[in-house]
This record gives sequence, C-alpha cells and structure tokens, in this order.
Amino acid sequence: MTPTLEKLVNCFSSLPNIGKKSATRLAYRILEMTEEEANAFASAIIEAKQNVKLCTVCQSYSEESVCPICANTQRGIDTIIVVEDNKALEAIEETNEFNGKYHVLHGIISPVDNIGPEQLKIKELLARLNEDVKEVIIATNPSVEGEATAMYLGRLIKPFGIKVSRLAYGLPVGATLEYADSITLLKAIEGRTEF
Amino acid sequence: MTPTLEKLVNCFSSLPNIGKKSATRLAYRILEMTEEEANAFASAIIEAKQNVKLCTVCQSYSEESVCPICANTQRGIDTIIVVEDNKALEAIEETNEFNGKYHVLHGIISPVDNIGPEQLKIKELLARLNEDVKEVIIATNPSVEGEATAMYLGRLIKPFGIKVSRLAYGLPVGATLEYADSITLLKAIEGRTEF
Repeated sequence: MTPTLEKLVNCFSSLPNIGKKSATRLAYRILEMTEEEANAFASAIIEAKQNVKLCTVCQSYSEESVCPICANTQRGIDTIIVVEDNKALEAIEETNEFNGKYHVLHGIISPVDNIGPEQLKIKELLARLNEDVKEVIIATNPSVEGEATAMYLGRLIKPFGIKVSRLAYGLPVGATLEYADSITLLKAIEGRTEF
Repeated sequence: MTPTLEKLVNCFSSLPNIGKKSATRLAYRILEMTEEEANAFASAIIEAKQNVKLCTVCQSYSEESVCPICANTQRGIDTIIVVEDNKALEAIEETNEFNGKYHVLHGIISPVDNIGPEQLKIKELLARLNEDVKEVIIATNPSVEGEATAMYLGRLIKPFGIKVSRLAYGLPVGATLEYADSITLLKAIEGRTEF
C-alpha cells in the first residue's frame, strides 16, 4: 500500500466502528471515484466542520446561531428534553410527537473516560431554567453512565422547583418476554401501569 | 439535520457498506474533530486521489509510474497472478510466499452490471505476455462472475502457449465439514489430492 493511501486508511479507521479492513475498502473506493466526486467529499468535510456550530440555546448542531427548533415559536417552551447527543434528538424528533424544546449535553458523565459534569453542556442547561420551564425530561441512554448522569441532573434541577422526569424503562414494543434480558424485565414489572 | 451535514452524510453513505445510520454517525464524528483533524482528513482524500495512479505495468495502485513490485528485480517474471482488485493483491502479498508479479483487472466481467471485458485491464495483461512469462494464475474471487472471467481469460491466454491455472477450490483451513456449504464440499471432493 502506498504511503498516501495508508494515510487515508488511517483517517478512515479513526472513525467509530471502522476497522482496518473496512477503512482500506473505503480508501480504495475513494480512488475509484472521479476527481470531482473526491473533491466534493473533501469539501463536504471541510464545510461541515466550518458551517456547523452549536445552537447558542440548546447546544444542538446548527448552521444558525439559534437552531430551527429553538427558533420555532410554535413549539412549547415549558418542556425541555435533555439528550446525550444530536442522534438522540433526531430519534425523538422522528416520533413526530414531541412539540417542546431540547438540550444536548454532548456526552455523559463517565469517570472511566475522564468526562466530568464540567465537560458537558450542563451550565448552559441550568441557564435556561427560567419560570417558563415546567418540566425537564432526562432522556440519556439507558446505560450505567446515562443513569448516573440522569440522577446527577435530577439533583441539580430539583432545587429550581421544576418537575424532573426520566424516560420509562420497559419492554420494547414488539418484543417477546422470552428474549428480554432480566434487568429490562424487572424494570418492566416495577414500572407496570394499571388498567 | 442541517443541509451541510446532510451533504456530508450523503457522501459517507455513497461508500460501500455504509448505510444512512452509519453515515450519520460518521458525519457527527467529523463535527467532533478539531479543525486540524477535519482538514487533515479532507487533504488525505484529495492527496490520495491526486497521487495514487495505476502502475503502467501491472495496473495496481501506485504513486510511481512503475510500482515497487514491478520494479523489484528480485521477483520472478515468469509467473503473473491476475486479481480482480488491489485488495486481493494485498491478501496474496500477506502470505509472503509468492515471489512473482501481479496484474490487477480492476473488476470482473459482469453482464448484470454492464461490465464487459473492454472495461477491464485485459489488453494491458495481454501486452505483458512475452516469452518470459511461463504461467498465468487466475485468482479472481470464487463467485459466478469471477469464474466466468477466469474462463474468459483462460481462453484468451492459452493461444499464447502459456500455462494458465486457477486457484484451488476446497475447504478453508480450520473449517469443519459440518458447516461447509455443499458446493464447496463437492469441489473439495473433486479436487482431492492423493497421499
């Protein structure tokens, strides 16, 4: 493999879930592209990095200083869903059911990875908690770190006199009990709802 | 998702085996990079495309007009292994056992994909078949198209009075018969070797 190609392979393999073999395949694909396609790819990377900043309100990725969701006056300002990253925000938006606002933490508290609360967009969240906000829904991922971050945020926000909630644990829709892991099953029993 | 980000996602999802969801994850990773890292990535793409050309002899990817393998006078010139692409060449090189030359076709004959012999580096292969070449080993992948391409090349090369061979079919080393597919098993029986 040529040195230039090796450099490109290393770039690709620095991306998440791309191993050496996949990175090599991707790099070869670049070589098969036309000059225009390769240039367009390179420009897309540079432009994304240059143009996409954080919304000054909710900290989601945005090309304007205030993102379209924060700028949308049709959306309620009384509920804020707090998510770990933009991917989670988009997953919730795709349900087409939530009409409030978001806040993106850009990570979770993880002592193992040396990520503390100060590295997350938490003070930006607290700055938003004025009298209009009635509820903050913590929607971190259902992992140990996600849970710890949720508890940390809960303790921080409660003193503001704002309702703080957490997404429900339970069986995913369409699942069979047989294949559910026992922790999920236990959470589903604990969180049972009455008819 | 912002328009610039969407453009980057589309670039990533044009790559092989990268679906929409993976492409989104990769694009977000670019946003998390430092400006320097993102620029280095973009440059790596442009440089690879600009610097890596085809070796004028074997048609493999190379930064010189003649690649290191073709330029290496320590390697035998009597055997040429014909492969579909550079990945196959590298796989064979990794065995550290073959000391001859290669020829890269850059594809296989595939009527379904509208790829005929004229789109492959076949005339460049025929141009190399001088009196020094004693054997051409066709090492296309063991697929229907790979097999058809091998047969086509075999018919083309035989009139030159050169031995043409094909990689052996059989059980992969370490496999168990129980899990081998029946065609492979049949090929292994057909190609059995005597003690």
